[in-house]
Amino acid sequence: MKRIIIIGGCAAGPKAAAKAKRLNPDNVVELYTKENMVSYSACGLPYFIGGVVPNVNNLMVRSPEEFKKSGVDIFLNHECTKIIPEEKTVVFNNEKTVSYDELILCIGSNPIVPKINNYPLKNIFNLKVIDDGVKIKQIAITAKSVVIIGAGYIAIELLEAFVKNKLKIYVIEKSRKMLRVLDNEISDCVRDEILKRGEGLIEFLFEDEVIEFIGEEKFEGVKTKNGREIFADFCVIAVGVLPNISIAKEAGIEIGIKGGIRVDNKMRTSVPHIWAAGDCTEQSFIPTKQTVYMALGTIANKQGRVAAINASAEEHGITETFDGVLGSMITKYFDYSIAATGMSESSANSLREYINIKPISSTVEEFDKAGYMPQIGILKIKLIADSVTGTILGAQVVGTGDADKRISVVASALRAGLTISEFLHLDLPYAPPFSSTIDPLLTAAYKLKQIIDS
Amino acid sequence: MKRIIIIGGCAAGPKAAAKAKRLNPDNVVELYTKENMVSYSACGLPYFIGGVVPNVNNLMVRSPEEFKKSGVDIFLNHECTKIIPEEKTVVFNNEKTVSYDELILCIGSNPIVPKINNYPLKNIFNLKVIDDGVKIKQIAITAKSVVIIGAGYIAIELLEAFVKNKLKIYVIEKSRKMLRVLDNEISDCVRDEILKRGEGLIEFLFEDEVIEFIGEEKFEGVKTKNGREIFADFCVIAVGVLPNISIAKEAGIEIGIKGGIRVDNKMRTSVPHIWAAGDCTEQSFIPTKQTVYMALGTIANKQGRVAAINASAEEHGITETFDGVLGSMITKYFDYSIAATGMSESSANSLREYINIKPISSTVEEFDKAGYMPQIGILKIKLIADSVTGTILGAQVVGTGDADKRISVVASALRAGLTISEFLHLDLPYAPPFSSTIDPLLTAAYKLKQIIDS
Repeated sequence: MKRIIIIGGCAAGPKAAAKAKRLNPDNVVELYTKENMVSYSACGLPYFIGGVVPNVNNLMVRSPEEFKKSGVDIFLNHECTKIIPEEKTVVFNNEKTVSYDELILCIGSNPIVPKINNYPLKNIFNLKVIDDGVKIKQIAITAKSVVIIGAGYIAIELLEAFVKNKLKIYVIEKSRKMLRVLDNEISDCVRDEILKRGEGLIEFLFEDEVIEFIGEEKFEGVKTKNGREIFADFCVIAVGVLPNISIAKEAGIEIGIKGGIRVDNKMRTSVPHIWAAGDCTEQSFIPTKQTVYMALGTIANKQGRVAAINASAEEHGITETFDGVLGSMITKYFDYSIAATGMSESSANSLREYINIKPISSTVEEFDKAGYMPQIGILKIKLIADSVTGTILGAQVVGTGDADKRISVVASALRAGLTISEFLHLDLPYAPPFSSTIDPLLTAAYKLKQIIDS
Repeated sequence: MKRIIIIGGCAAGPKAAAKAKRLNPDNVVELYTKENMVSYSACGLPYFIGGVVPNVNNLMVRSPEEFKKSGVDIFLNHECTKIIPEEKTVVFNNEKTVSYDELILCIGSNPIVPKINNYPLKNIFNLKVIDDGVKIKQIAITAKSVVIIGAGYIAIELLEAFVKNKLKIYVIEKSRKMLRVLDNEISDCVRDEILKRGEGLIEFLFEDEVIEFIGEEKFEGVKTKNGREIFADFCVIAVGVLPNISIAKEAGIEIGIKGGIRVDNKMRTSVPHIWAAGDCTEQSFIPTKQTVYMALGTIANKQGRVAAINASAEEHGITETFDGVLGSMITKYFDYSIAATGMSESSANSLREYINIKPISSTVEEFDKAGYMPQIGILKIKLIADSVTGTILGAQVVGTGDADKRISVVASALRAGLTISEFLHLDLPYAPPFSSTIDPLLTAAYKLKQIIDS
């Protein structure tokens, strides 16, 4: 029996709490969160804003009452203000002290706010917590125009929601492209497909930056580095997140090179009996063993599970591991899917010397099922491998077909370290409603093999 | 430059012909088929019968004219009647002799016709070639009832077509279940779901056999071993196929233990300069290295490719291999998908001694995406592993969710020989429209790991 205290209520925290209690019903498991709710799907917010999910309450995974029933106590509106490892206690709201045997930090991340003149103003939002989603949905109903800063996947998901609301949308992105995990030519193809489905409402401003917000109390527009003045009803900043680490740092817990809490593959921090999971931690990128920072719900859930298992175990019983990430991602814009895993060709190229690889790629564009079937989709597939060893390094799949399946298969192959020669012998299931006899993924693999052999 | 003769015009043959010409435009490539057409998708026939594919011509992949343009000569209505390896010639229609440098046999399979009294009669069909499909579609329009002998996936695909045509359907199956590749409880679940969507039109007769056809010239019904007399307008026999080997056997080409042409992983037969690919050959089952016989379009295409590459190469350049099959399959019945790969638990159990494994399984039933999304599907996932080594042995996935993706991922893991511990670290892409944060496949893996560890 242990007293396990968990801080954080979004994804990793609730997962860890439920698991810790299930593993040993004698454990005392308490979850503290600064928010006024617990266990919700932040990833679902764009779908709530776009009306796909009708009610925000649908995004609540588990209520405090349900946790209570399973023996986990939830403490809302409890902000952790101090961790005292030498006493094995935590202080909430500067007043309430709680002791622990094991402490699991799932304290998440904070949205990045670029340094922009005249910030903050009313009607400038992030999209991080439930309340952000509610506010954005509310304003989007009556507004006529919006500025989105950033062109990652939150931006893409918001674009669909805002096009449905018939808003004029300006997307301002510092780099030359959308979704930096994609190679330039794939990203450009995504941009074109997004504009094609944009009903003329979307304008992209690449290689530009907001230098000043216009407005007095309320947001009225932006001035950009390239000299544009854009007026709009509201603004969403979606340029990513940074790990939330301040209380951990103050407590002497080691912070890693990417700015997140450093954990080993058992989810141990540098301080005994303190574990961490989710957006507040750094991860290891499986293909290169480099440290990366990826704030994703899947990672949070898996890490939360591992932290709970190991925190519940006796010292000698700590065996569960979280081995790292592949950077697998997927998102959707109307009928168009965008997915990737592993390294892009450009990121692989930038690592040529560091990990001694010679990246090479093939790209194919193919129907995603038998050509005579109705509702046939098209997929553009880019497969990247090391031409020296043949090892697969990554893939990008975009289009109206089932990109999810193809990227999932490559993720599985990456995890196993398959070479392209092994990969093209994959025996994938076939029937006309699901794929072509030779799956487009294998066509990409054949092509890549040919390039390597020639 | 070589003179490459290919016999067979459905899947492996056309693939081999196109590849052999592309590899070296100086090659003389001729394809002979006994049929009056070439290069069509037999797998699409149920969808033509059900009206999903409006015109039978849609199933033609490539016309003889298109082949001609790419430099491949097609000879229709040419039945191979003799192979003379010592002269390196082939005889067609007992009269025309053609010489070869390399001969690729893609002579396919023949439908199994069980020994039944009073066979043949008019209106008893197989579903093998285009003409079969045209005849079945024609009669299904006016008929009121049908007997299907066999309950494999051709039967399932026909069931959907016939339910749409409002036919009363009797399915007579020798064994206790549908789709023998599935374990009993999964198969029973599929049967129930098929009946649920059957509009009361389907009756299954398991553990029964047709012993006699009723009718004089024309099919009128069947008598079964269990004493049933069933009257219906037509009958489809769908109990599988056997490799077509007679001319190969006569020519002294070795036939393997499963009754197909024995080939090595280069697609070489026992006779020099004669290759074989597709339904006429046996394959190696990757997880056990046993010889199996699987007649599937994907296998035919891949083998045709490998045969063409190696037949075109100089002796020392023969390197391309076809490593074997996993038995991956998928089919669909309205919105319900049925997919499997590798070994079932029962087939694994029957091999316990032979390959020294202790099979164990987990089954979960889960939503296939975030619970708050619309059009959510349900998946039943059974995952099978060896409890001694942890190696994954197979999986079965059925339901209204994306079964294809999950089986494709397991097929990839099987190919790589992943253990369950490795498998549960898969980093699959996640977004609410595509899956739950922890994919149901991983939930099945966690459960299986727990069972193995306990």
